[in-house]
Amino acid sequence: MSRQPSDMLPAESPRGPINSRIPDGDNRPRLVCDECGFIHYENPKIVVGAVCLHEDKLLLCRRAIHPRRGYWTLPAGYLELNESTEAGAAREAREEALAEIAIDRLLAVYSIPRISQVQLIYRARLARPDFGVGEESLEVALFGWDDIPWDDIAFPSVHWALAHYRETAHLADFPPFGNPPGATGNY
Amino acid sequence: MSRQPSDMLPAESPRGPINSRIPDGDNRPRLVCDECGFIHYENPKIVVGAVCLHEDKLLLCRRAIHPRRGYWTLPAGYLELNESTEAGAAREAREEALAEIAIDRLLAVYSIPRISQVQLIYRARLARPDFGVGEESLEVALFGWDDIPWDDIAFPSVHWALAHYRETAHLADFPPFGNPPGATGNY
Ligand SMILES: [Zn+2]
Ligand SMILES: [Zn+2]
Repeated sequence: MSRQPSDMLPAESPRGPINSRIPDGDNRPRLVCDECGFIHYENPKIVVGAVCLHEDKLLLCRRAIHPRRGYWTLPAGYLELNESTEAGAAREAREEALAEIAIDRLLAVYSIPRISQVQLIYRARLARPDFGVGEESLEVALFGWDDIPWDDIAFPSVHWALAHYRETAHLADFPPFGNPPGATGNY
Repeated sequence: MSRQPSDMLPAESPRGPINSRIPDGDNRPRLVCDECGFIHYENPKIVVGAVCLHEDKLLLCRRAIHPRRGYWTLPAGYLELNESTEAGAAREAREEALAEIAIDRLLAVYSIPRISQVQLIYRARLARPDFGVGEESLEVALFGWDDIPWDDIAFPSVHWALAHYRETAHLADFPPFGNPPGATGNY
């Protein structure tokens, strides 16, 4: 991912002469820059990622960046401007795992309201068998289900996506999952 | 919707001493405020909305705001901070159509890269038969399929969502649709 070092976490807080007030014609407080008058709308962020299969193994990346440096995650990150969600998921796999992926279908849509994130996670395959270690990864590897480093997974939603992948591994078609019942992704 | 008057269109451009440059540790130009140093990350926006059914009719709102004032749309708008996508879709129906809805499932995920929008459109029912005209609507009404004002629909994605709703009207379960093949939502 290429946006902020806080992959799968909220953007950093503004640092500037920014105060919260309700702009004219709005109905909620927004962050307004006292100097330039710009309204710093805070918007929920879209994270795109993929569970990538290759010969019955799943591709995971060990994070080289904070938060959760050293823990394993899916290739995933913030959607960029002017990018479709599928293109964004493919870009993240390219950046973090030097992998070209073929997206199959939407696996899940997770909402993590506390950090204002919506995650769109796709089911995909490696389009070529080769991959490598991207700049934001310490290590990239394929794991059979039983070899996944379950105790060292970076984020709850990575657990969710792997479990949801597992439930649909033999299905061609399925509606995407949402959050597991009662789960908010907070930790 | 309560964010900006440009519902289902991009946020307005920043107005301030903001220039484009690549921040340290990033790999793309971002808008940086010369005065406060704040990095105005431009993020894709998430639009949430619903095709709402009541007794075989669909709920549409005639827009009281620009763009496309006077044209018909689904209750939809920008997801707010700390809101799940389902809660956001329900809020939009409440704001624009004074309607309480029961969300059934995800109908579609549309990407509109030119305006950096991802739309999550749900299938829903009215939870109560009453509705009304919200602040941003001129008129709110239920339409049978053949009575939908097809020539006065506000946005391409409203056409897509209605057609996709129609395809699944008798299905309990289905994978969500994406953009119609080749369609980008530009107009
Ligand atoms: Zn500013
Ligand atoms: Zn500023």
